[in-house]
Amino acid sequence: MNIKAGVVGATGYAGAELVRLLTGHPQAELAAISSVSFTGQALSDIYPAYYHICDLVCGTQEEVVEKSDVVFAALPHGLSQELAKTCYDAGKVFIDLGADFRLENEDDYKEWYGGTYLYKELHEQAVYALPELFREQIRGKKIIANPGCYTTAVPLALAPALRKGYIAAEGIIADCKSGVTGAGRKLTQNTHYPELNEGFSAYKVAAHRHTPEMEQSLSHVAGGAPVKLTFVPHLLPVNRGILATCYAKLQKEASLQEIRQAYEEQYGDEPFIRLLPEGRVADIKNVRYSNYCDISLHMDPRTNTFIAISAIDNMVKGAAGQAIQNMNLAFGLDETCGLMLTPPAF
Amino acid sequence: MNIKAGVVGATGYAGAELVRLLTGHPQAELAAISSVSFTGQALSDIYPAYYHICDLVCGTQEEVVEKSDVVFAALPHGLSQELAKTCYDAGKVFIDLGADFRLENEDDYKEWYGGTYLYKELHEQAVYALPELFREQIRGKKIIANPGCYTTAVPLALAPALRKGYIAAEGIIADCKSGVTGAGRKLTQNTHYPELNEGFSAYKVAAHRHTPEMEQSLSHVAGGAPVKLTFVPHLLPVNRGILATCYAKLQKEASLQEIRQAYEEQYGDEPFIRLLPEGRVADIKNVRYSNYCDISLHMDPRTNTFIAISAIDNMVKGAAGQAIQNMNLAFGLDETCGLMLTPPAF
Amino acid sequence: MNIKAGVVGATGYAGAELVRLLTGHPQAELAAISSVSFTGQALSDIYPAYYHICDLVCGTQEEVVEKSDVVFAALPHGLSQELAKTCYDAGKVFIDLGADFRLENEDDYKEWYGGTYLYKELHEQAVYALPELFREQIRGKKIIANPGCYTTAVPLALAPALRKGYIAAEGIIADCKSGVTGAGRKLTQNTHYPELNEGFSAYKVAAHRHTPEMEQSLSHVAGGAPVKLTFVPHLLPVNRGILATCYAKLQKEASLQEIRQAYEEQYGDEPFIRLLPEGRVADIKNVRYSNYCDISLHMDPRTNTFIAISAIDNMVKGAAGQAIQNMNLAFGLDETCGLMLTPPAF
Amino acid sequence: MNIKAGVVGATGYAGAELVRLLTGHPQAELAAISSVSFTGQALSDIYPAYYHICDLVCGTQEEVVEKSDVVFAALPHGLSQELAKTCYDAGKVFIDLGADFRLENEDDYKEWYGGTYLYKELHEQAVYALPELFREQIRGKKIIANPGCYTTAVPLALAPALRKGYIAAEGIIADCKSGVTGAGRKLTQNTHYPELNEGFSAYKVAAHRHTPEMEQSLSHVAGGAPVKLTFVPHLLPVNRGILATCYAKLQKEASLQEIRQAYEEQYGDEPFIRLLPEGRVADIKNVRYSNYCDISLHMDPRTNTFIAISAIDNMVKGAAGQAIQNMNLAFGLDETCGLMLTPPAF
Repeated sequence: MNIKAGVVGATGYAGAELVRLLTGHPQAELAAISSVSFTGQALSDIYPAYYHICDLVCGTQEEVVEKSDVVFAALPHGLSQELAKTCYDAGKVFIDLGADFRLENEDDYKEWYGGTYLYKELHEQAVYALPELFREQIRGKKIIANPGCYTTAVPLALAPALRKGYIAAEGIIADCKSGVTGAGRKLTQNTHYPELNEGFSAYKVAAHRHTPEMEQSLSHVAGGAPVKLTFVPHLLPVNRGILATCYAKLQKEASLQEIRQAYEEQYGDEPFIRLLPEGRVADIKNVRYSNYCDISLHMDPRTNTFIAISAIDNMVKGAAGQAIQNMNLAFGLDETCGLMLTPPAF
Repeated sequence: MNIKAGVVGATGYAGAELVRLLTGHPQAELAAISSVSFTGQALSDIYPAYYHICDLVCGTQEEVVEKSDVVFAALPHGLSQELAKTCYDAGKVFIDLGADFRLENEDDYKEWYGGTYLYKELHEQAVYALPELFREQIRGKKIIANPGCYTTAVPLALAPALRKGYIAAEGIIADCKSGVTGAGRKLTQNTHYPELNEGFSAYKVAAHRHTPEMEQSLSHVAGGAPVKLTFVPHLLPVNRGILATCYAKLQKEASLQEIRQAYEEQYGDEPFIRLLPEGRVADIKNVRYSNYCDISLHMDPRTNTFIAISAIDNMVKGAAGQAIQNMNLAFGLDETCGLMLTPPAF
Repeated sequence: MNIKAGVVGATGYAGAELVRLLTGHPQAELAAISSVSFTGQALSDIYPAYYHICDLVCGTQEEVVEKSDVVFAALPHGLSQELAKTCYDAGKVFIDLGADFRLENEDDYKEWYGGTYLYKELHEQAVYALPELFREQIRGKKIIANPGCYTTAVPLALAPALRKGYIAAEGIIADCKSGVTGAGRKLTQNTHYPELNEGFSAYKVAAHRHTPEMEQSLSHVAGGAPVKLTFVPHLLPVNRGILATCYAKLQKEASLQEIRQAYEEQYGDEPFIRLLPEGRVADIKNVRYSNYCDISLHMDPRTNTFIAISAIDNMVKGAAGQAIQNMNLAFGLDETCGLMLTPPAF
Repeated sequence: MNIKAGVVGATGYAGAELVRLLTGHPQAELAAISSVSFTGQALSDIYPAYYHICDLVCGTQEEVVEKSDVVFAALPHGLSQELAKTCYDAGKVFIDLGADFRLENEDDYKEWYGGTYLYKELHEQAVYALPELFREQIRGKKIIANPGCYTTAVPLALAPALRKGYIAAEGIIADCKSGVTGAGRKLTQNTHYPELNEGFSAYKVAAHRHTPEMEQSLSHVAGGAPVKLTFVPHLLPVNRGILATCYAKLQKEASLQEIRQAYEEQYGDEPFIRLLPEGRVADIKNVRYSNYCDISLHMDPRTNTFIAISAIDNMVKGAAGQAIQNMNLAFGLDETCGLMLTPPAF
């Protein structure tokens, strides 16, 4: 099979990372790219790393849709719905790396993003595609909402413990730290090198848009029970990676070994989840440039607190890699196709 | 006044930072330094940054004690007690940057450090010297236990809210991130540049020795009520700084403004605490190379969680700067003498 | 003495660094600041590191001139001449951190900056103020052209060898590497954190505006002989520092020891130049946040090439620190006043 | 074809990078690894990035030789010759990432490495394997001397200009900057994170062992004329990459376009050399984790100096990637097999 893949918004970081991964995918071909800001320019003029590898010129969204079997959208929120409609009507698979199709409850979308759902039927067709938690619902779907980065790391860290009832659904704290690519390519003073370098800070404290998305996934995992958590993201002076340090109260007595058993059962066959042996701690270093999610489990017996730490590359498992994993699922390929990249050790 | 200051363990990071600050102190003079590993070598051979500024040669502990009015000890734990005795008997002021005199309860020391208290009377004389919380007890003291880095950042972040009863004494979570100088000068694989750079991880998860020290301070603040908290430190790929993100449950209804009022009352006149205006978030960037502790206050109304974030330079307010602040207090100088260093903006 | 100092362009990096140094200067007082972009805003809103230290509000250039004895201008080139005129007419000392008064030959200014000299008499009054090379001409001057960063590092590295005729005036190569603050506060794609981090590159290869300024200084040192050199700057992924690796052909037989003797003679009493002992190599690490210039000397006997390496902090000795050194000279203060800052060892 | 590849010295950085690349090679299989320091330990215990990807246990050199068709040696110099003999006698292909077979002249080896050639016949069989310059001599060889990192970057930057006589063979200056992985995995004070971070310095000034190796390659390129150059390496605070800024005097009149023509002729079909368009400058950022060598060409008409800048990933094109390129050549595979990795843009 040779899937023709198109990327809308190819010059943003998520788009550019899709290009990196698609150029190495044995069963997909990068057919077309588009960019509003750089129409008419070669992608390798914007990212010289791709020189002689992807010298495709940025065209229009229409060209991408026409030339592609699957359209990846890496757009600011609010801009994906019309494109989704066009793709859907044209019979293309649409994979949205933005937030427009992630929230099941339109009220949440209104509250956190300030938008409305333009095509209810599309939202009914759409699937929230975190494969390790909701795989069976993804296969064969045409509108795929690819999860956000934090919203991949946190639910994966907690799901098995929550599903088995070891931890309480309330009182969860997710203290997360993200590399700077998570802030995108747009220039801002606080991502200007001299002002970020050697600095470290939180942002959008208890006010980040990924909050309802995490709660939605965890609520499904908890069998529908409402989940409210406190989420504080921080900006790390590194390019890539999210480390999610998640704290939850034990709600039934359990040893760390018992809880670990639940993780092994749920994740034992997952190709992209590496449950770390006791004594190791997840580190963003070890998953960079790869689609892995490393998870380590810990206990604070003094306070009866369970601590799960997950590490992903925010641009891969937290964005472009997961999108390709979803493409593989949607097209019936081996889910790992093009994604078994060994993370560099340094 | 011209205080003769000596540094035992001058070639470790805390010792070297003491040297930096003492060379700029208008009422102290660096009289002598010692080092077990580098006896006979000039400090500027080990730290070329100090060339022509401090070319003192490392001597013995005995020489330091003899030549100094105040002896700073920057030693691995367990090695300070004999030195304290010597200083005390010789009538010198002894300021310990290690842990040997910090814990009031010897059992805690045994449990977390595996040592015993050799001279009970010295421990009775010793004062735990976090000036912003326990200032009055420090003046005139001869044996001064300088707090650790995390144990400065966390109690300062939470004290006013806890003292006024806004937050519960249990269920506190301190998710802390430290720059690499906190790990010291000793070579280890995980502080080897290529293995730390672009990485980020937790360590000693819920098992760090600073835990009982934090609880001791917070318990005093809470009027003696026992405090148990969950403490997870992380290692940041930056040289300096600790960011402490502290989470606590509200135990009585209160707006963020009311709680802020308690901070203003307690810290309003503190020269080294900067309570940030609403909307700003503490950042380690802004306190580097200075003795400031920046604190920002936040609320998660969805979960009734109060969040206080503090930032210090782990080597200054978290070690050498605070030690000099304590020297100033012990000798009756202006507490800020030699410490009003403007942090660089970049 | 209490000099009233004003900073025009205080929100740029050179301006902000002047503020850092002036807040610690014992005989100067920061009287007023201005900024075109941030008029009406407190400096500490732009640089939170200065909160409670310099909360001055940015006013106009006119206010700065009125309130100050000395006006520092940290402006883009072309904007200093009118301000210099105003200051000169008002009897103020004017210290320009830009390029408008650096080049003696107006043709060079036209060629490299595209501007003209508006007030010839001011340029006649102006002095090029690299104190270690041209100190006697600075004292008592009213219009002071503060050298650029590269143009401080390179001439200081080579001057003694050139002056004594050890090296040839032609064929010099200056391969320089600068920290990112040298590129200023203005946002650009190539100083956006994720695109600079872990990268390293040259820029303006053999085409940087500092070239004629270096040649001018070196020509004076060489007794007027014309000097042409090849200058290639690179951008280092660090905040501060310039390392200048300078290569020159020996033009008379000499041992490294003989040449070193020339350096000791010329620089032996200089408070801010540290000639490193044999076997050490200059490192930007050791001069950060200080006004020192470290110099190490090397020889390649296989090719008869003399190599001098200098390290400065581009924002201090390469900009704001040198400007204050010049203020001290202009006002007859001790040249080192407010500048004896110990560089941090880490 | 399925080549059985073994790595001796797998736990050093070059060895570990070989493992990363071999795990993704479609026609090779990692058959065995060895390590003196970590015998009996899984590689993924030392490099957790490889967990579940390469959990091979480190065995002995003998086991590696026995199980492999090709043996890669990533050993300190002096240790490869006996292993080469063993491999040669057993009919295995031997690819040495160290220096034992690189220098044609044993006197150079004695002078710079202090060793001797144990088996003259092996040195006669050995080929110096920089494919872009000496490809035809590599095919079918059994003892392959893989070039060093600097010695890949510098000759590739200069070869076409030198071969065509545009630049002089003497007076060349190679000012090179390397990422820290080039210094290896061994702990040293100057690669301890807090002491390297935010620093930058030269080392082994005009005294680095790669000097005679560069001169050997360039001399071949120059048709045998002796080449002496001045080589100064610097240590960059990044993990990966070498930037070589090379300066040479023009020895016949030529425009940059004419010289560029020589590069296009020589390198036009090279899969791993990217000659950058005019106006771009080579950046280590753009070749990280890939086997590319980017080259940009510049001229300083004021001094008649030609400047060529090359960028490689020191661990890939400068070590492990080139070794696999050589394996491909030795076994008659497509030279690019397993090496067409898209460098990440960030």
